[in-house]
Amino acid sequence: MIRHLVSIDDLSIEEIQALFTWADRFSEDPRGQSEMCRGMIAASLFYEPSTRTRLSFESAMLRLGGGVLTAAEMTSSSAAKGESLADTVRVVGGGYADVIVLRHPSEGAAQLAARYSPVPVINAGDGAHEHPTQTLCDLYNLHVERGHIEGLEVVLAGDLKYSRTVHSFAYALARFGAGIVCVPQPGFEMPEYVVRRLRDEFGVEPVRADTRRLGTLAAESDAMYLTPQKPHQLSLFTDAKGWELQQVDALYMTRPQTERFDQSDGGVSKYMRLDRRDMAAESLRDAVVMHPLPRRDEISSDIDEDPRSIYFKQAGRGVPIRMALLSALMGQIELPVNNSPARESWPVSVGANPCPNPSCISHTEPRHVQPRFVLASRQPMRARCAYCSRELLYRFVGCATTGHYHLPESAALRKVRPENLVFLPDEEQAAVLNFSQAGVRGDS
Amino acid sequence: MIRHLVSIDDLSIEEIQALFTWADRFSEDPRGQSEMCRGMIAASLFYEPSTRTRLSFESAMLRLGGGVLTAAEMTSSSAAKGESLADTVRVVGGGYADVIVLRHPSEGAAQLAARYSPVPVINAGDGAHEHPTQTLCDLYNLHVERGHIEGLEVVLAGDLKYSRTVHSFAYALARFGAGIVCVPQPGFEMPEYVVRRLRDEFGVEPVRADTRRLGTLAAESDAMYLTPQKPHQLSLFTDAKGWELQQVDALYMTRPQTERFDQSDGGVSKYMRLDRRDMAAESLRDAVVMHPLPRRDEISSDIDEDPRSIYFKQAGRGVPIRMALLSALMGQIELPVNNSPARESWPVSVGANPCPNPSCISHTEPRHVQPRFVLASRQPMRARCAYCSRELLYRFVGCATTGHYHLPESAALRKVRPENLVFLPDEEQAAVLNFSQAGVRGDS
Amino acid sequence: MIRHLVSIDDLSIEEIQALFTWADRFSEDPRGQSEMCRGMIAASLFYEPSTRTRLSFESAMLRLGGGVLTAAEMTSSSAAKGESLADTVRVVGGGYADVIVLRHPSEGAAQLAARYSPVPVINAGDGAHEHPTQTLCDLYNLHVERGHIEGLEVVLAGDLKYSRTVHSFAYALARFGAGIVCVPQPGFEMPEYVVRRLRDEFGVEPVRADTRRLGTLAAESDAMYLTPQKPHQLSLFTDAKGWELQQVDALYMTRPQTERFDQSDGGVSKYMRLDRRDMAAESLRDAVVMHPLPRRDEISSDIDEDPRSIYFKQAGRGVPIRMALLSALMGQIELPVNNSPARESWPVSVGANPCPNPSCISHTEPRHVQPRFVLASRQPMRARCAYCSRELLYRFVGCATTGHYHLPESAALRKVRPENLVFLPDEEQAAVLNFSQAGVRGDS
Repeated sequence: MIRHLVSIDDLSIEEIQALFTWADRFSEDPRGQSEMCRGMIAASLFYEPSTRTRLSFESAMLRLGGGVLTAAEMTSSSAAKGESLADTVRVVGGGYADVIVLRHPSEGAAQLAARYSPVPVINAGDGAHEHPTQTLCDLYNLHVERGHIEGLEVVLAGDLKYSRTVHSFAYALARFGAGIVCVPQPGFEMPEYVVRRLRDEFGVEPVRADTRRLGTLAAESDAMYLTPQKPHQLSLFTDAKGWELQQVDALYMTRPQTERFDQSDGGVSKYMRLDRRDMAAESLRDAVVMHPLPRRDEISSDIDEDPRSIYFKQAGRGVPIRMALLSALMGQIELPVNNSPARESWPVSVGANPCPNPSCISHTEPRHVQPRFVLASRQPMRARCAYCSRELLYRFVGCATTGHYHLPESAALRKVRPENLVFLPDEEQAAVLNFSQAGVRGDS
Repeated sequence: MIRHLVSIDDLSIEEIQALFTWADRFSEDPRGQSEMCRGMIAASLFYEPSTRTRLSFESAMLRLGGGVLTAAEMTSSSAAKGESLADTVRVVGGGYADVIVLRHPSEGAAQLAARYSPVPVINAGDGAHEHPTQTLCDLYNLHVERGHIEGLEVVLAGDLKYSRTVHSFAYALARFGAGIVCVPQPGFEMPEYVVRRLRDEFGVEPVRADTRRLGTLAAESDAMYLTPQKPHQLSLFTDAKGWELQQVDALYMTRPQTERFDQSDGGVSKYMRLDRRDMAAESLRDAVVMHPLPRRDEISSDIDEDPRSIYFKQAGRGVPIRMALLSALMGQIELPVNNSPARESWPVSVGANPCPNPSCISHTEPRHVQPRFVLASRQPMRARCAYCSRELLYRFVGCATTGHYHLPESAALRKVRPENLVFLPDEEQAAVLNFSQAGVRGDS
Repeated sequence: MIRHLVSIDDLSIEEIQALFTWADRFSEDPRGQSEMCRGMIAASLFYEPSTRTRLSFESAMLRLGGGVLTAAEMTSSSAAKGESLADTVRVVGGGYADVIVLRHPSEGAAQLAARYSPVPVINAGDGAHEHPTQTLCDLYNLHVERGHIEGLEVVLAGDLKYSRTVHSFAYALARFGAGIVCVPQPGFEMPEYVVRRLRDEFGVEPVRADTRRLGTLAAESDAMYLTPQKPHQLSLFTDAKGWELQQVDALYMTRPQTERFDQSDGGVSKYMRLDRRDMAAESLRDAVVMHPLPRRDEISSDIDEDPRSIYFKQAGRGVPIRMALLSALMGQIELPVNNSPARESWPVSVGANPCPNPSCISHTEPRHVQPRFVLASRQPMRARCAYCSRELLYRFVGCATTGHYHLPESAALRKVRPENLVFLPDEEQAAVLNFSQAGVRGDS
């Protein structure tokens, strides 16, 4: 079966650790790997520019002795002659290339590509959705610098609201069992839905954090600690003022994602700026400073020479970890068996596309593709878009075989097979599609 | 002597078949050919974007172990610093690359490049003129799917008026002795000049076709059968209603070339759409469905999984056939000796450029280049532009040595050497160039 | 220590000659060098388009068996997400690539990149500043055609005012001891500052030249001869009418650099045009015709076939000489030891950036970078921008330790350490920075 990398969740912890081991090996002699993927080809399909990400992947492929096809300026807008993404990956994956690296402005694009491509697809960023190799690279840096990830204390600082990178990194840190200290730019706190997912899926609890030991950096920030430990354990060492930050292992700084700001965000008049003075804080004595780059002014160049500043090294380590990933997906190295079942999805065969995300690929590129969903829970019935992961919007759920519809909470839905579920926005649409209300005219 | 590929006509049938054999070999182990062109370089010079074509060539070169130079966004418009195409290919071919793959919006660009380049030039599309490797790929698909081309019955459907691809394919099918069934979108019939060339050069006769067995697809179409057999043979099995379609070997669908539509074409309100229902037609039982891609809606995705739908495979096979072509032109594999003489051409040394095609390279890029012509017939004197193949426009033909001019039908022209021919639009221009009418003041 | 190529001056004559020897070797078998840089990667970072230069470098790297990362359309303008050049080269040089080829519109960009990059940087053109590999290529052509450079007579013709290429070539010719005959397009004479540098740094003297033997080409030109011989030697063979041109070894033609023209230059109504008639001049009998390309109309295509026309060969030879350079900088071949000390520079730590060049990288890209200067002379105190080489603009020079300022001529400055020099535009700024005039309140 072809393996893709659409989300960091597609990789088990064991697989990630195996990739680290290979990346370590490649790092020792990056120029000596030119037989690893000889004769193979990676295609960079970039529907929006991202020179750094592209060069990192292409460097990795060249180091492995493979070839690179570059389409740095594909545009999904070319209405006249343009083709659907589903067709493009079937062509490029059908003989041109052995792996596809895809960057796309629409959420879910990589998932769609993976569905149709005959060769592995690597998500190099799909809108505000996922960018798993950035997360892989960030984790790898912790592995190199600290030797492990479990139990580390990692500070996430800056714009925690819009940074896709920071959200993915937080999920992954939680999965590995690291503690997370959120030190947001005021007004750009970690969104509620991210915290909820951290709690729901990874059992992480948020606690108010006392960050006095962080010094000037956290002075104005409403800090939060996300801990993989259970609350009752936490209470052993916290007091009323919240958990107290001791020693930080890594400080992850992010730039303001101004391109995603909306009106309510206003202009950030005074964004955080990490400088030599901040780095003198007691708790940061052994902390490495990370940044996904590009930075603007949030890290002062006066700490560029500080040995704790690893942000340039961090970017460079993106190459060996991508070498490991490419080799694995193309079957040149073996990863541990992943027993977690693949996420199942079903087509939305009746009615309009219930995904509420206008920049989801199921809306921006509907040709040759059917909307699909995954089930998040059966009672109440909650479904998510199989492409962009957004929760579907509907008031009723119908059953295609009985022709009846129900409220999402209805126990009757438990018996309906997923392929027969129909998502209905309102009674009118239900009527149009010939569905009648369950119970009113005899629910089965 | 350097071999170029400007037109599919540059290759003999024997050469094409030898390329098929090599392509078969390469297909068996595409990743195992990395010694074939090691140390060699292909340059993609693309003066208009065509990502798919470019990637297909570059994939082929990389599979052969060669290197690729990419200039995906060359523009002929850069007036300030721009250089003539003749100069560019002399530079790129003079040490940078071992083969040039050229895409250009002007008709005849590849011919011009071939004239000046020190290394082989491959035409990857020159305006509405030629795209020989697409045709080569289409023929190769028939070879793979059917084992031969002679005697096949191939349906060409859709926009047969503007599709450069379909015209070249038709000429090549005729040359190989296949039968062609034209099922045009109403209003987009095969142009008269194409049918004329099919008859003049390949002895193909058009016959009205009865396509009832094609079912819904041909219902509104005025179908035509182009047969390599002589009409008297044909009469053996046709009746008054025209030749009756029996069994189709391949159905070649084309998209509406809306970018070339003119006002008279209007909007195509309802373009043909091949779907599951059409494919149920009796005559298509064993037909493979082909499409040069990109498709839009003319092939429904409901037949994407049909084993007869080979359009994605078709694109993929472009790689091994281009591998064969590149290897051959760079002298790494040998083709059968081609005894057909190269087409001779002569410079237009006197007067204005007589090529009537405004998008011919001889008009769009006149620097460092002289217009040239080839002789199509000597009586009447008919000449074509050596670049874009368009028939020259003139009322009189002069002789540079006698200073006389004649009507094209004049027998006197038979004695004039081609290098002395002068094409004159009218009497005024003749006078300006000091030509006098033959016979009036003593014709020699 | 990492070697960069920012200016042709970075290479000693011995190193250049060693590169020639390697280039000769590579020319003999360009396709056979694919083990030389196997596993290594060159990154082309082009902040303005220059397809020819880029392809020449990439061809060289591919011929050496290395890989190429291409960023053909980087833009320094991308304000939102853009990163500083200093950061970019630290990332790209920190694992992605083993050598960086940089093209940038700002003067001094390559020097800045060299300062921060962990791998060698090659300047592929930084604004109007330097383009050392073009000069290297030009010199290599003389070496191939004539076997030596010392003592050659080289005519530089055309726009000698704006052509960066011609200035660098002139400096290099002077360094190698060749004679230079300037035959400018009227109004586009060699600038005074270039002539001054030729005299100051290379001991070259300008003499009026009698170019009657050049025929039509120099008819309207005010020719000048730049000779490496001492004036008293020159007088041995010149008369009152100036040195008389005898036999030319090379004629270097340049295009009008219209993109750099200012209002005072007007339109060049009739630019020089070298054609067959010119080439009949007695003195050009054995002269090779060179041109950095692209040409427009300044060389007529009627001499393209003339064996003396080497401009296409000249471009082609850019590949082997760049192969030699790349191999040397990446440590794959050894060059003679260069004993010339590296040019030292110091940061401008106090006050505004004193570089007067608005398109200097120190102004266009100030983030993460401090202005720096080099000392051109100590008495009077003259300093140049360490990036763009332009002389700094200031009225006074202060000493950071004493807090006093002086006129540049002051002997007191001789005792000040370079790192303590402060460049002050006027008294007002001096006061703002708390400097007092030396002597007035007790100079030390």
